[in-house]
Amino acid sequence: MTPEEFRVCAHALVDWIADHRARIPDLPVQATTKPGEVAAGLAPHAPETPEPFGAVLADLERVVVPGITQTQHPAFFGWFPSNASLASVLGDFASSGLGALGITWQSAPALTEVEEVVTEWLRELTGLSPAWKGAIHDTASTACLVALLAARERATDFGQTRGGLQAEPAPLVVYTSPHAHSSVAKAALLAGFGRDNLRLVDVDPTTYAMRPDALAAAMAADVAAGRRPAAVVAAVGTTGTTAVDPVGALVEVAAAHRAWVHVDAAMAGSALLLPECRHLVDGVEGADSLSWNPHKWMGTILDCSLLYVRDVQHLVRVMSTDPAYLRSAVDGEVTQYRDWGIPLGRRFRALKLWFHLRLDGVEAIRARLRRDLANAAWLADQVTAEPGWRVLAPVTVQTVCLRHEPAGTVSDDGTVLDGEALDVHTLAWAEAVNTSGLAFVTPSVLDGRWLVRVSIGATATERSDVAALWDLLRAEAARHGG
Amino acid sequence: MTPEEFRVCAHALVDWIADHRARIPDLPVQATTKPGEVAAGLAPHAPETPEPFGAVLADLERVVVPGITQTQHPAFFGWFPSNASLASVLGDFASSGLGALGITWQSAPALTEVEEVVTEWLRELTGLSPAWKGAIHDTASTACLVALLAARERATDFGQTRGGLQAEPAPLVVYTSPHAHSSVAKAALLAGFGRDNLRLVDVDPTTYAMRPDALAAAMAADVAAGRRPAAVVAAVGTTGTTAVDPVGALVEVAAAHRAWVHVDAAMAGSALLLPECRHLVDGVEGADSLSWNPHKWMGTILDCSLLYVRDVQHLVRVMSTDPAYLRSAVDGEVTQYRDWGIPLGRRFRALKLWFHLRLDGVEAIRARLRRDLANAAWLADQVTAEPGWRVLAPVTVQTVCLRHEPAGTVSDDGTVLDGEALDVHTLAWAEAVNTSGLAFVTPSVLDGRWLVRVSIGATATERSDVAALWDLLRAEAARHGG
Repeated sequence: MTPEEFRVCAHALVDWIADHRARIPDLPVQATTKPGEVAAGLAPHAPETPEPFGAVLADLERVVVPGITQTQHPAFFGWFPSNASLASVLGDFASSGLGALGITWQSAPALTEVEEVVTEWLRELTGLSPAWKGAIHDTASTACLVALLAARERATDFGQTRGGLQAEPAPLVVYTSPHAHSSVAKAALLAGFGRDNLRLVDVDPTTYAMRPDALAAAMAADVAAGRRPAAVVAAVGTTGTTAVDPVGALVEVAAAHRAWVHVDAAMAGSALLLPECRHLVDGVEGADSLSWNPHKWMGTILDCSLLYVRDVQHLVRVMSTDPAYLRSAVDGEVTQYRDWGIPLGRRFRALKLWFHLRLDGVEAIRARLRRDLANAAWLADQVTAEPGWRVLAPVTVQTVCLRHEPAGTVSDDGTVLDGEALDVHTLAWAEAVNTSGLAFVTPSVLDGRWLVRVSIGATATERSDVAALWDLLRAEAARHGG
Repeated sequence: MTPEEFRVCAHALVDWIADHRARIPDLPVQATTKPGEVAAGLAPHAPETPEPFGAVLADLERVVVPGITQTQHPAFFGWFPSNASLASVLGDFASSGLGALGITWQSAPALTEVEEVVTEWLRELTGLSPAWKGAIHDTASTACLVALLAARERATDFGQTRGGLQAEPAPLVVYTSPHAHSSVAKAALLAGFGRDNLRLVDVDPTTYAMRPDALAAAMAADVAAGRRPAAVVAAVGTTGTTAVDPVGALVEVAAAHRAWVHVDAAMAGSALLLPECRHLVDGVEGADSLSWNPHKWMGTILDCSLLYVRDVQHLVRVMSTDPAYLRSAVDGEVTQYRDWGIPLGRRFRALKLWFHLRLDGVEAIRARLRRDLANAAWLADQVTAEPGWRVLAPVTVQTVCLRHEPAGTVSDDGTVLDGEALDVHTLAWAEAVNTSGLAFVTPSVLDGRWLVRVSIGATATERSDVAALWDLLRAEAARHGG
């Protein structure tokens, strides 16, 4: 395809995208396709000869759009916000259009240095001290794995340069909350620690935050048994309830064992843009690494996860590669991001952060986050005031965990009387909400019982959308035997 | 930014990109900025209020473009081709515009199913049997790590569910070629095997391909010493010389020890689109995993690396996560790509493959690859016929390793007489080529001495560009004391 052919197709595609974005409020929020339906709508073999662009665009409309849960919809309250701001989309376009290759500073100095600048902008905007240096990764899952690998190599004094983890004399142990994201356990297992050496530390029964005394006890027990505490992953904003582990207190406990502390703030990290929310990570300057995802609430299109570390030299030593064909005269003077993470090559992802922050401005982003916090507080107030409804966890940021509890299922003091009936009811009305296409929420399990998470923060979501959701929840709960 | 504001900006950006792509032949190939120069050209803090799109676009032109080595340039012969075909760029635009979230089948059935379909298209196009299933990863580095984690868990019978690698009684060993990509050693270290348990197996001194007898001997020695062979990484197209390890013979040796065989065909995988090149992976049906990068020679824009495995159930067991908030009624019926790799969330990368194959057609892609093979053979012939020049390794695909050897530095039979003078000369003329801006090549080390890799295969590169390069190489070598 020549640049002139591209120009024609791309203009058509831009119009399609702008039209699509404008009509999203009129689309069903939840994807409407059945398993296999999208695949059945596609050709079984790749075409030998070019197809016209119109045919591809038509398939995008016919097959792809119905097969997407519209996370940009004003009534999307599922999982966590996954905002793809149009300002950041322009940055993504620029990245694709340039077609730059990020494998070494020399291959694209701008790719490296824009990333250095924007991660520095965001360090400052989130109130971290200049001791931190950041880089862009695809997701917080990967960032957590990188952090645990760095932790492992610190604990073994670079055992990877000798016999690896399999040569270690005493088992290394990783600690996290049972409410931490599933990617934490996955990262610990992939890093080789083994499930036997992963401790899920007790949480407070009301806040669901990790208890520092329980962490201290778990570490002491491991040490007494000849094991070595290597890492603590603190969740700031758990996936279930956005519970906030007390970073400062955990850092103090970990320090006694020289254990690495990684703060997983994948969702709540966006809140650090607001000075009034920085208490969420009180004590973070004592931690070793912190990750959060601008691709969630802040709204820089996926994939854009930031991992900040305090000891870059350590990270680079764990991750470095130095083959001859990547050497250049400027080595030592420049940043080589290939040595900050797992993949050698990287896209020019910094552009989407750069475009997003410049075209929207930080003030507007902050105002939007504050709007969402107020909306969550408003919804929690409505739920609390409504007979038969309950908020089940502290609303620390913008997610409200709620449940409709029909008569006889739960006592006034919150004791579950008929858990099975309650679960059936919760899943039934949540499913009805989602299949209505009018809104999308995520059921989840807390203390062994289903509840519904309402995660507020899609860019387009205004108070009126939250109010409409609240009407819909009550209507569906009532229709399903409330 | 509203859809209408986006429409205006995106049209302007499309025109900028089309114009940029059209003028690339007139730009210097190598980035012209000095370390720190790009960063110095950017604002030190994020703006509080929105900037006009024109200001951002102007910075893209002023700061970013000079800071990019133009891998789309017809005279780009560096590293490996990193083609960003405009057809695939359109697919990337569609992905960004849709803003879909790939964390579970339900979040975007189309994202999952288009990926299933296009990986199946490419399986068929590359001649793999239906026993293989593929998924898209960011890079071959990540794919190799995933493969080695799968290998580790097969060798330990899922030790991660118990004490992890640190509980294993006898060390597991990984085997690869000293010419394998640096990411293989990195992956082995990150997976916890340790450098002591990474064997760099002898290669043939002429082809630089791994010797099966040397692999067998290394494995036997490890077994005799109480260690256990766990994985072999075979390189099909090494980075230095595109040497091709003999997959079939290595598979046979590995089978005796039930060692996992991963085939890293990051670069040469594109050649499998040509039936006449499938001999490069003879015996691959006996391997366990294969990765290659459409984002290299084939030209689907970075990042797009494919990892095919034969035992998906095993991979899923190694990588799976199953938290409550990701459960849905269709679990078991659908593919959950989050359980096929490291990150939980994924972009809609399948679209760029889908657009690329449909808009360009396979026939045209094959014709381009054949053009490049012929150009490489032509250049190798010119070099071989030219006194004072030598081709240093077999041209297995599209990369020519060459050297100018001034009188007195190398004897007629290839013995290096004055290696230091030779290295100084090679690096000097290669640097002169690159700083000229007229072409870009990559110096690399083979048998302890520098040479120059000419990796042919940028989409725009025609025979005339290769001929012009050959003139330039001779002129610069002569100017630098040849």
